[in-house]
Amino acid sequence: MQHIHNYYNLYVDLAVEARDLVRGSKDQEIPGVEEKVEQMEQIKINTIIIKDPAAEKTMGRPVGTYVTIESPPLKIRDPYVRDEIIAAMKKSMSLLIGDRLQPGQTVLLVGLGNWRATPDALGPKFIEYSPITRHYHQHAPEALVEGMRPVCGIAPGVLGITGLETFEVIKGIVEKIQPSLLVVVDALAAQNVERIGTTIQMSNTGIQPGAGVGNARHALTEQVLGIPVIAIGCPTIVNAAVIANQAVHSYCVDAGITYQETRALNMVREVLSHFGGSLAVTPKEIDEIIENSAHIISMGVACSLFPDISTEQLELYAT
Amino acid sequence: MQHIHNYYNLYVDLAVEARDLVRGSKDQEIPGVEEKVEQMEQIKINTIIIKDPAAEKTMGRPVGTYVTIESPPLKIRDPYVRDEIIAAMKKSMSLLIGDRLQPGQTVLLVGLGNWRATPDALGPKFIEYSPITRHYHQHAPEALVEGMRPVCGIAPGVLGITGLETFEVIKGIVEKIQPSLLVVVDALAAQNVERIGTTIQMSNTGIQPGAGVGNARHALTEQVLGIPVIAIGCPTIVNAAVIANQAVHSYCVDAGITYQETRALNMVREVLSHFGGSLAVTPKEIDEIIENSAHIISMGVACSLFPDISTEQLELYAT
Amino acid sequence: MQHIHNYYNLYVDLAVEARDLVRGSKDQEIPGVEEKVEQMEQIKINTIIIKDPAAEKTMGRPVGTYVTIESPPLKIRDPYVRDEIIAAMKKSMSLLIGDRLQPGQTVLLVGLGNWRATPDALGPKFIEYSPITRHYHQHAPEALVEGMRPVCGIAPGVLGITGLETFEVIKGIVEKIQPSLLVVVDALAAQNVERIGTTIQMSNTGIQPGAGVGNARHALTEQVLGIPVIAIGCPTIVNAAVIANQAVHSYCVDAGITYQETRALNMVREVLSHFGGSLAVTPKEIDEIIENSAHIISMGVACSLFPDISTEQLELYAT
Amino acid sequence: MQHIHNYYNLYVDLAVEARDLVRGSKDQEIPGVEEKVEQMEQIKINTIIIKDPAAEKTMGRPVGTYVTIESPPLKIRDPYVRDEIIAAMKKSMSLLIGDRLQPGQTVLLVGLGNWRATPDALGPKFIEYSPITRHYHQHAPEALVEGMRPVCGIAPGVLGITGLETFEVIKGIVEKIQPSLLVVVDALAAQNVERIGTTIQMSNTGIQPGAGVGNARHALTEQVLGIPVIAIGCPTIVNAAVIANQAVHSYCVDAGITYQETRALNMVREVLSHFGGSLAVTPKEIDEIIENSAHIISMGVACSLFPDISTEQLELYAT
Repeated sequence: MQHIHNYYNLYVDLAVEARDLVRGSKDQEIPGVEEKVEQMEQIKINTIIIKDPAAEKTMGRPVGTYVTIESPPLKIRDPYVRDEIIAAMKKSMSLLIGDRLQPGQTVLLVGLGNWRATPDALGPKFIEYSPITRHYHQHAPEALVEGMRPVCGIAPGVLGITGLETFEVIKGIVEKIQPSLLVVVDALAAQNVERIGTTIQMSNTGIQPGAGVGNARHALTEQVLGIPVIAIGCPTIVNAAVIANQAVHSYCVDAGITYQETRALNMVREVLSHFGGSLAVTPKEIDEIIENSAHIISMGVACSLFPDISTEQLELYAT
Repeated sequence: MQHIHNYYNLYVDLAVEARDLVRGSKDQEIPGVEEKVEQMEQIKINTIIIKDPAAEKTMGRPVGTYVTIESPPLKIRDPYVRDEIIAAMKKSMSLLIGDRLQPGQTVLLVGLGNWRATPDALGPKFIEYSPITRHYHQHAPEALVEGMRPVCGIAPGVLGITGLETFEVIKGIVEKIQPSLLVVVDALAAQNVERIGTTIQMSNTGIQPGAGVGNARHALTEQVLGIPVIAIGCPTIVNAAVIANQAVHSYCVDAGITYQETRALNMVREVLSHFGGSLAVTPKEIDEIIENSAHIISMGVACSLFPDISTEQLELYAT
Repeated sequence: MQHIHNYYNLYVDLAVEARDLVRGSKDQEIPGVEEKVEQMEQIKINTIIIKDPAAEKTMGRPVGTYVTIESPPLKIRDPYVRDEIIAAMKKSMSLLIGDRLQPGQTVLLVGLGNWRATPDALGPKFIEYSPITRHYHQHAPEALVEGMRPVCGIAPGVLGITGLETFEVIKGIVEKIQPSLLVVVDALAAQNVERIGTTIQMSNTGIQPGAGVGNARHALTEQVLGIPVIAIGCPTIVNAAVIANQAVHSYCVDAGITYQETRALNMVREVLSHFGGSLAVTPKEIDEIIENSAHIISMGVACSLFPDISTEQLELYAT
Repeated sequence: MQHIHNYYNLYVDLAVEARDLVRGSKDQEIPGVEEKVEQMEQIKINTIIIKDPAAEKTMGRPVGTYVTIESPPLKIRDPYVRDEIIAAMKKSMSLLIGDRLQPGQTVLLVGLGNWRATPDALGPKFIEYSPITRHYHQHAPEALVEGMRPVCGIAPGVLGITGLETFEVIKGIVEKIQPSLLVVVDALAAQNVERIGTTIQMSNTGIQPGAGVGNARHALTEQVLGIPVIAIGCPTIVNAAVIANQAVHSYCVDAGITYQETRALNMVREVLSHFGGSLAVTPKEIDEIIENSAHIISMGVACSLFPDISTEQLELYAT
């Protein structure tokens, strides 16, 4: 959760929310942005492709493909919807990786975030629930099932606890073990509480520090690391500032008065000022939401990386 | 955190906040309410006494004494302010208990809340950090220091996890072990984010379900349990509804337009509707705040119950 | 884990181990003890019935029925063996309860042990993973599935942390809520490391303090509580003394010299003396073993208490 | 805890125990080994210097200085002994580092072990309790106290969970951030249960894989990493094999029969065979022991790295 760790902003983590903001009330196409929606039985898959630098600027996020899987039942422990989501993730991973990963090549999983703060523990828990196999290749190959590639994983912790920039740690490890693909999972901030625990975003653009603030050299991207980077995220919080601002906006609309954005943001800042703007809004079911999301994402990723091996078999390799 | 567990409301847990709401902008006395403020070096102690049924109705909380200790540095792990707060708690406990507890009498500590949800774990952590001695009296009296009374403690969990009402569990235990005093600690909801981790409220009124909703027989009060009940609480969350409503109010005042409360609450409800109104706003430092508050409260209570024994000695008896 | 908490002994928790000790090398029947073995595909079910006071004395445990389910794959997270074990637990619960529980009657689950010490956390985790429904009956009956009885649960903690005897807490709650059945889960100590995480014992005798030491009034039994008590346990540790003693015994046998029990126990005591004899031997996979066992036991119990409801549905009600 | 993770052996982690084994019952000097003992009020400091390759071979551990701080009260939370231990660690760190660390130079702390397995969580908890300052140098220098050097820290996890060799992760990070000193903390296995929680070993030799098995290139040593490495460890377990073997030995001595080592080890292996020899013996107070040890070690290290800053001040920087 790079953004909420560091900055006081209303930055938008989800591409689908950025698109809604750009389009506003006009329901028209955005130049350079291609979009596709598939409605399955219990889930909806939305694919947004940002195709050129102009669209990159409009959308406030880099050229690439963003797949969003939405499913309200994801939030509860629903065994019926699980298989559908895993299948959708498998298909999306295929689309995002293309032919860039060969059988037998090594994959490094990275779980960003802080395992000691519940809404930020999605990444560390993803590592905990993922099947890890690389050490068997080196120390006990007989324990592997035919066709298992080497997969390793790390949760590097957050800057405030380690004093280390995430990209320093990851770049160091990538140089040492030379994986062919990086899959990085992080908790996201949403604009809408309804998205908490119901949305998974996957993209082939890696992870960047907050717009306008960050340093391109500090990103987890193919440009910096030299290998493809798949980023996966789930909204787990809404910034309290977003909610307060929405309430002001709804009030103005309902009362038929003009909403003045600058004034609204100033008032919100004042109300929240005592904790440096870092107030996170989470539902009280957040512990359970994180558990469910981490489990499903780890299985979705594992099924993509080990396409010929059953979910039951893979769970035996989870650490 | 009885209120945020169960009800969608803007209920006020802190007596000092209730007083501010009742007084509004008029800085005048409330009939039947006595108030005293002491300013120490780093902390401020506010004592509110609600004296009669009329004041009980105005203030929305029962007749009794409410002591509030406020100290911004409580939020950080500041060893300098710690001793001053413990001394203030010891003095306040004396005031609240009076001569109703004799040396050698048994005390039962109760930590309300859910240890699996960080902002609600204050009560269970209070039990964890409190010196417990009752079992030594029965099984190893030689391990006790001269003058140690029997103290026991339980964190009964929350209704949603146990299926048991707190008062059922506590009343059952009280009848079995017959303590002379109950000290119950719970996380509170505040109106103001500034209060999170900076305020301790102590009262001799016990704990009641939310105003207008509750059932008097379900309370943890002297009336129900037959022994004095000291309630201690710390604000650890602000309801997201409160913050959103404040933002609307500030906006209206700043823009010079009339604030319409019903309209504002309706808009807030709509914005927050997807999680049943139970959205809690917490600072990201909440884990550390809970640790610090629980430690200080457990030591403040212990120093009151074992007045002749040093803090260092007492820490050896913490479980 | 009543025994390892309190006493330095070589007490035997499992009835099948007690039987082996009584029989020694002679493979003959024990008077007053009836035994039946069923071999399923991946599990073995052993039923021992202690029928009269004489057998009670020989076996060192009370008259009643003891069912032991043994399955080496229980130790790993094996989805294939799970359903077989749950079915076996459902059948055994039926045998142990008989016609003493009617549809709609309330059940209280009790998880003994200390959630802060991994090998002792089986009971608390059992409560965590069990479907709890009693509060829906009182506050939200519309959330219940047809035919769901009221089930509630508590993990009362251990004497060293609460200062409260378990039977005091449970008897108090039983008197308040008047359930028709108690199901109590606890970690056990085994004689053999092979049993850790591979054995589940179920009995209708309740739970008693260690033989010769305990006080009958302090037990969790039907005699004390007035309702049937089903006790379920899994071995999670072996006392280090048992292992050291076994090594001495094996050595003597292998070297062809006489094993002198008193001398052996004295030497073992000396080697272990620095921690009061409470040294527990656990495999390093103990965290995972506890997770798996707690999950399976909670589902096995839930399927018995809600026989018409599917496992998937029940998991939605786990807290 | 490199050794117990990977190998079935009776390897000796502590230099003082290795010395005892080498000397046997003869209380004479070992050639090439220099030793000094200081008895303070509540603690004993033992310094062993292995001076040449011959002594390295005899002692089974590399040339270097090993300081052992022993104090029975370390095991309990005793505020009186704490300051004495911190002072001893500060002095020992000075001896081990010499003039190789200049003011302002960066230090990397490494906490080995698995935070999900209690006796192995010493390293991760050391990182958790250590003051971390490097990120303030880069992002908020105004938050630093005069003279604070950059300190960062990481708990890289264990091979079985990450699939990454520790030295790969650490070497990668060292190359990226180029610290001037590495301090690595790990849980150790002892020969004697009395040492659990009462002994701290500090050395300037780094950390090596188990004797005879390891690969020198995989070590965390100055030779591999290019910077001085201080290794700090606390015994937190005794291998069950050690205890069983001791019991056999004591029995033989007591019974006046010859102890045959090969036979004894074979019998021990048979008794423990069902868990691959990885059975750890821990006292049930292990959670508390780990907490105390991690706290004291983190403060001892911090006081060495920030010699002019008070303990109280440093605790404010602990994460």
